[in-house]
Amino acid sequence: MKITQSHIENSNDELKKNHTESFDFLSNQLSDKGVDVNLVVEKIRALQIAIPSWALGAGGTRFGRFSGAGEPADLIQKIQDIGIIHALNKSSNAVSLHIPWDIPQDYEAIRQIAKDLDINFDAVNSNTFQDQPGQKVSYKYGSLANSDKAVRELAVEHNKEVIKIGERLGSKALTVWLADGSSFPGQHSIRKALANTHDSLSSIYEYLPSDWKILVEYKPYEPNFYSTVIQDWGTSFLLANKLGPKAYTLVDLGHHLPNTNIEQIVATLMTEEKLGGFHFNDSKYGDDDLTVGSVKPYQLFLIFHELVQGFAETNNPSLSWMIDASHNVKDPLEDLLQSVEAIKLAYAQALIIDQKALEDAQQNHDTAKAQEILQDAYRTDVRALVSEASRQLGGAISPIKAYRKVGVRNELIKERGTDSKASGL
Amino acid sequence: MKITQSHIENSNDELKKNHTESFDFLSNQLSDKGVDVNLVVEKIRALQIAIPSWALGAGGTRFGRFSGAGEPADLIQKIQDIGIIHALNKSSNAVSLHIPWDIPQDYEAIRQIAKDLDINFDAVNSNTFQDQPGQKVSYKYGSLANSDKAVRELAVEHNKEVIKIGERLGSKALTVWLADGSSFPGQHSIRKALANTHDSLSSIYEYLPSDWKILVEYKPYEPNFYSTVIQDWGTSFLLANKLGPKAYTLVDLGHHLPNTNIEQIVATLMTEEKLGGFHFNDSKYGDDDLTVGSVKPYQLFLIFHELVQGFAETNNPSLSWMIDASHNVKDPLEDLLQSVEAIKLAYAQALIIDQKALEDAQQNHDTAKAQEILQDAYRTDVRALVSEASRQLGGAISPIKAYRKVGVRNELIKERGTDSKASGL
Amino acid sequence: MKITQSHIENSNDELKKNHTESFDFLSNQLSDKGVDVNLVVEKIRALQIAIPSWALGAGGTRFGRFSGAGEPADLIQKIQDIGIIHALNKSSNAVSLHIPWDIPQDYEAIRQIAKDLDINFDAVNSNTFQDQPGQKVSYKYGSLANSDKAVRELAVEHNKEVIKIGERLGSKALTVWLADGSSFPGQHSIRKALANTHDSLSSIYEYLPSDWKILVEYKPYEPNFYSTVIQDWGTSFLLANKLGPKAYTLVDLGHHLPNTNIEQIVATLMTEEKLGGFHFNDSKYGDDDLTVGSVKPYQLFLIFHELVQGFAETNNPSLSWMIDASHNVKDPLEDLLQSVEAIKLAYAQALIIDQKALEDAQQNHDTAKAQEILQDAYRTDVRALVSEASRQLGGAISPIKAYRKVGVRNELIKERGTDSKASGL
Amino acid sequence: MKITQSHIENSNDELKKNHTESFDFLSNQLSDKGVDVNLVVEKIRALQIAIPSWALGAGGTRFGRFSGAGEPADLIQKIQDIGIIHALNKSSNAVSLHIPWDIPQDYEAIRQIAKDLDINFDAVNSNTFQDQPGQKVSYKYGSLANSDKAVRELAVEHNKEVIKIGERLGSKALTVWLADGSSFPGQHSIRKALANTHDSLSSIYEYLPSDWKILVEYKPYEPNFYSTVIQDWGTSFLLANKLGPKAYTLVDLGHHLPNTNIEQIVATLMTEEKLGGFHFNDSKYGDDDLTVGSVKPYQLFLIFHELVQGFAETNNPSLSWMIDASHNVKDPLEDLLQSVEAIKLAYAQALIIDQKALEDAQQNHDTAKAQEILQDAYRTDVRALVSEASRQLGGAISPIKAYRKVGVRNELIKERGTDSKASGL
Repeated sequence: MKITQSHIENSNDELKKNHTESFDFLSNQLSDKGVDVNLVVEKIRALQIAIPSWALGAGGTRFGRFSGAGEPADLIQKIQDIGIIHALNKSSNAVSLHIPWDIPQDYEAIRQIAKDLDINFDAVNSNTFQDQPGQKVSYKYGSLANSDKAVRELAVEHNKEVIKIGERLGSKALTVWLADGSSFPGQHSIRKALANTHDSLSSIYEYLPSDWKILVEYKPYEPNFYSTVIQDWGTSFLLANKLGPKAYTLVDLGHHLPNTNIEQIVATLMTEEKLGGFHFNDSKYGDDDLTVGSVKPYQLFLIFHELVQGFAETNNPSLSWMIDASHNVKDPLEDLLQSVEAIKLAYAQALIIDQKALEDAQQNHDTAKAQEILQDAYRTDVRALVSEASRQLGGAISPIKAYRKVGVRNELIKERGTDSKASGL
Repeated sequence: MKITQSHIENSNDELKKNHTESFDFLSNQLSDKGVDVNLVVEKIRALQIAIPSWALGAGGTRFGRFSGAGEPADLIQKIQDIGIIHALNKSSNAVSLHIPWDIPQDYEAIRQIAKDLDINFDAVNSNTFQDQPGQKVSYKYGSLANSDKAVRELAVEHNKEVIKIGERLGSKALTVWLADGSSFPGQHSIRKALANTHDSLSSIYEYLPSDWKILVEYKPYEPNFYSTVIQDWGTSFLLANKLGPKAYTLVDLGHHLPNTNIEQIVATLMTEEKLGGFHFNDSKYGDDDLTVGSVKPYQLFLIFHELVQGFAETNNPSLSWMIDASHNVKDPLEDLLQSVEAIKLAYAQALIIDQKALEDAQQNHDTAKAQEILQDAYRTDVRALVSEASRQLGGAISPIKAYRKVGVRNELIKERGTDSKASGL
Repeated sequence: MKITQSHIENSNDELKKNHTESFDFLSNQLSDKGVDVNLVVEKIRALQIAIPSWALGAGGTRFGRFSGAGEPADLIQKIQDIGIIHALNKSSNAVSLHIPWDIPQDYEAIRQIAKDLDINFDAVNSNTFQDQPGQKVSYKYGSLANSDKAVRELAVEHNKEVIKIGERLGSKALTVWLADGSSFPGQHSIRKALANTHDSLSSIYEYLPSDWKILVEYKPYEPNFYSTVIQDWGTSFLLANKLGPKAYTLVDLGHHLPNTNIEQIVATLMTEEKLGGFHFNDSKYGDDDLTVGSVKPYQLFLIFHELVQGFAETNNPSLSWMIDASHNVKDPLEDLLQSVEAIKLAYAQALIIDQKALEDAQQNHDTAKAQEILQDAYRTDVRALVSEASRQLGGAISPIKAYRKVGVRNELIKERGTDSKASGL
Repeated sequence: MKITQSHIENSNDELKKNHTESFDFLSNQLSDKGVDVNLVVEKIRALQIAIPSWALGAGGTRFGRFSGAGEPADLIQKIQDIGIIHALNKSSNAVSLHIPWDIPQDYEAIRQIAKDLDINFDAVNSNTFQDQPGQKVSYKYGSLANSDKAVRELAVEHNKEVIKIGERLGSKALTVWLADGSSFPGQHSIRKALANTHDSLSSIYEYLPSDWKILVEYKPYEPNFYSTVIQDWGTSFLLANKLGPKAYTLVDLGHHLPNTNIEQIVATLMTEEKLGGFHFNDSKYGDDDLTVGSVKPYQLFLIFHELVQGFAETNNPSLSWMIDASHNVKDPLEDLLQSVEAIKLAYAQALIIDQKALEDAQQNHDTAKAQEILQDAYRTDVRALVSEASRQLGGAISPIKAYRKVGVRNELIKERGTDSKASGL
């Protein structure tokens, strides 16, 4: 199953009239306010969000999983799925591999398949939160933080292996999400676990190619329920500083305690030039891994507001962007299309904020005005800007409508059957 | 593997001297304060906490499971495990079955095995949060609340089946934990889902034998992450009132939003004579399912404070008590022994509160004094009371020390091997 | 200071062209989708949100208050301020009085002033969370829940007094926010406090005129920090049911534990025909009392989605709507204008949801589609609908722009000076 | 009103028999387990917790304050109150001043009065969250973080003034709690506010005497409700690192988001040698400022567990310890006595943990055993250890019982009347 140009045109044809009207109307409105609409569309066009290889099949919870149908059975099919997404939205030109679930068997073939679909290899992800069959020592009580040296060494070796795989594919970053922690007070020494983690990460850091980054993720809880070694941005930042200039903090939107001001973390990390990238998703309660923008779209906008300002005013390097959601009750491809769309919308809204007026309002402590300015951008219906960016690149005006019109899922089921299972959580 | 009298004696012998000294010292202290120590010990002796059939193997999270060894492979072995717990602590004389994981094959044999171990059959639990192989329609989008009538009927039938099984074993209650809900705004109609749930529960209620109870559990989130049909005690209470006098609310300690005052819910439900029972566990973040008393022992004490007062001053019927924890990093049997011990300790602490003095302090708005009174009970080292209750019944002074001295887990591994797996989450 | 017709016209003139274009464009778009735009505008016109008398001056926190200028010094000036708001937005035609802060001295005069400004008297609010000078017994340890009968009686009398005042002004509802609770475990008996509260409320209920409602508010914490007698909707609902058909639950958006699904509470209460009204505000952490829609506009939309459905499909009676925010860093009148605007926008968005398509998606378990439908409404820029509703009624196209253009605050400062202080928190 | 030796003896006499029995029994028990009881008592004796000058009168919430009686009207009376506390518990030999509430008028006199009562001057606290009468520019929109340079300079000057006052009294540390932040998205630039704060703190740091510390407090919210400039330990740590070796992070137990693992923060800061001290209190919901140990005594124990280990194994310098609670429904002096007692109990429990066995359990991943070891210490009734430490120093076996037996509050009311008001919140 591949998306063809005629699929796209077919879908765009029936939306074109309405889109053109909306875009023209919006362009005029924004131009009147002084917005450079072409520049905004250009920036939206440039935004590319990687799709993780584990996000293409049904997800689940500890209470079970309800499988979907037509899931990709191997890495090739996963990349083909991402190719479908990218052909539709022109904003997902990369895959983020999860090792050991997605070790290529034939590197050359995989690279070629990806190249044909215009897909790059973004950050590679290691996994030391599960044991693999035949593993000599277990990660049950931790990996990089384990008090047992043999386990730490195994976990360090695994990360090096992941780097090697990434190098052969053209990746330039390693993402480490460390599940290590404890579920009960006293289970481990908090200080020793942190020291061990620093030590293990240092070994990995030394092995890192000179043009790579290491992205250190943080999370307050789950799968450990008393303490997590890298529990917050502060701990990740502390480690990234100790490791060196190639180490950065990665922000997963779902990895925060209730009510955390995430946008402030983003702003602070950019000031310190230590923001490495994002795992995008949405959540109401914890690490719910819901579709981006489905629960807290205003928070997403505020995060992009900080990003847009930070891009303009700090020296923080370019970021790794990735979806990291779970698809328990939606078609994963539709969920991913919705997530990428939500990110682009938030970015578009942030791009049309009147920065000059905002700065004035802030300097004058005119809080009501500052709110009016932010919400003027947020309440603007920017969907035409995002559609236009996709259209200009040869993508769909409405990726999800095109996906449905083409009947992608049915095609995939025909090709793959109803029982194929994607590896992942 | 069975715990024998000599196992118990063997362990108690080396603890007896110290226990006797501690108990005597504590008895004198408490008697001086006006506490009837014998009565307290008698009440602790009477407390029996059911063990759920799914709690005897390693638990896990959505990120994976690290299996234990010597796990019970079938219902008989599960009951034997509970027999071990009860022989050691004399406080776990019941099993709570989870259907369909634990459908007996030979009812007579199961009843006899349980009887020999002095184990009763507590509330039976239905499961409509997972599909079973070959199931005609799926619970993916809900069961009792599903907008599809065929699914609701299947779920109702399943619950009736569970009641039938329970009747053959001597159970007197059905516990319904309903995972139904939605993960995204708009996924279902909140009002229709509630109405469907009420309707489905009514059908089950009508089927309920006259001497049974139905216990309606609530939970704010997980596995659904936007709304859960029975999201809080208020919704459970509303449904229990509509259903009738055999319907009660069941409180799982882990099923609350951050910072909830659980003891107030307990007190309110007892006032209304609608508290049906507990699922005991502990948690720091969400439904962490940790060992009871391992994170918030003072909260547990405050809950028992409300229970002790409620038993004395309300007409709430007797309760179903059950552990409901997950054992990811501990031997499940040790975890259960620790959980039951923690419950008994909290109960003992609550039993020695000077109720008369507390009432006076409350009437006089003497808040500092009220705190002194509660904390005087809480800070008292009541372990000797709990040990004495167990000892008097022929159990171990320290169940967990006895368990280790006997080497129970090694015996179980010898019998069952390292690869047996308990059914459950 | 009064808003005149020429003030309005003056402001509308410069916005009219843009407004007309936007409204026409939006009307066409919505009509194409099958929306009856006139009906939507009509419904927005009918929405009226009361302004509380305590919200017209600067608010503060326990750490201090930074006063504003030109604050209303007495009830007459407060009503005049509300008159300004209503003249601008045509959606705030009522005041909600707080007793004893706003006891009228001359009822006839007050009624006339209000009438001239087209202001009605909405629910009256009692205050038993503060002592008044010379009060015989203190509310320090509670009022309606107090274990001391004399205090309870005083609090009941106060509520009757508030009803009497309300009757003389034409109010039809009493709102009871009960701060009673405890800050320490053991401070009071949870069950007795609840029983006392029920008893006290019953006395008030009996006194209630036959065409009145009593609205029972709930709140999890603050000013008490261990337990609050009416801690959640379940407790309020329980009390409202016991009291009788004139008793309803009032939802203050800020009175919930972290992550609460408020819209589900709204839907449940409407199903039970027990939703009485709202105190609108917004918050990120607790009872932050921020401008409505300033932090979680999507949640506000989801609440209005439940309201729109509930109005159509339940027999819940009409509601009391009120702002209840604190204005620490904004001009209170601007804050109120922003709050009312945010409510109208959320209502407009909810009114244009394609209910038929949503119902189909729900019945088909098409979760992605359901999200598309909700977000299509939410992402639509409905500001022109709200402006049009105001314009048609003779109000401002942009109330806040008109407020600033007129220079209302400067006028008020000229009239009242910089040191006048509004009574309130 | 002064506590005399005969007051103490009078109270101790009637408790001595019971205390001696309890202490002897506990000593034997602990000695049998290998605990050096004398060393433990010695360490408890050495613990001294400062009393803040603002904690001696009734506190309140934004909803009001219910005054107490006999409150200290000036700094002299405040120090006398602390003298009473210290005479009773021998653990509160310092006052922490809050400027400008407690600027001494006669330094020599104040120093002499304090010296006579054996009271030292701990960290001094600046206040830039309130305006003082006649202040040139306002802190309404922030102080050290303000975008207005004149305001920042005023706030810096104030902090220098506070240092000067502290120097004249013998203080060695400045505590900065910065309330600065924003209540609405867009109100200020998050990055500029942080940069301004760093800049302002640098000016203060440069002024700091060479033997002083600056303690930088953090808090997630209140009085600002969208963002707080120093929102978490990570931000405070970042600033402390930038400032230099005299800057440290101060942990207020109530200043955390729901479910934060505070003990991990403490352990991390000690590893980095950047923990400066504590503001002790307890809370269930937010910054509730309740009596230490009244809600989460186990968490307090776990914090002290990290402290005891950290003292032994890190080079973190000695700490500033202070109570920071609010006394809304208790006699402030009783509340403070309870708070200090709770701290000493937690410390005593942490001191008797079997560290060697715990280390073994951790190395062997014996989680159940690790829990047993921690809880064995926690469940031990250590009150006799704390009483003995006080008794040996000439203090009361039970400070709160002695306080009541002496009738301190009545004496204070006689001396000061019922209407005296302590400055503070």
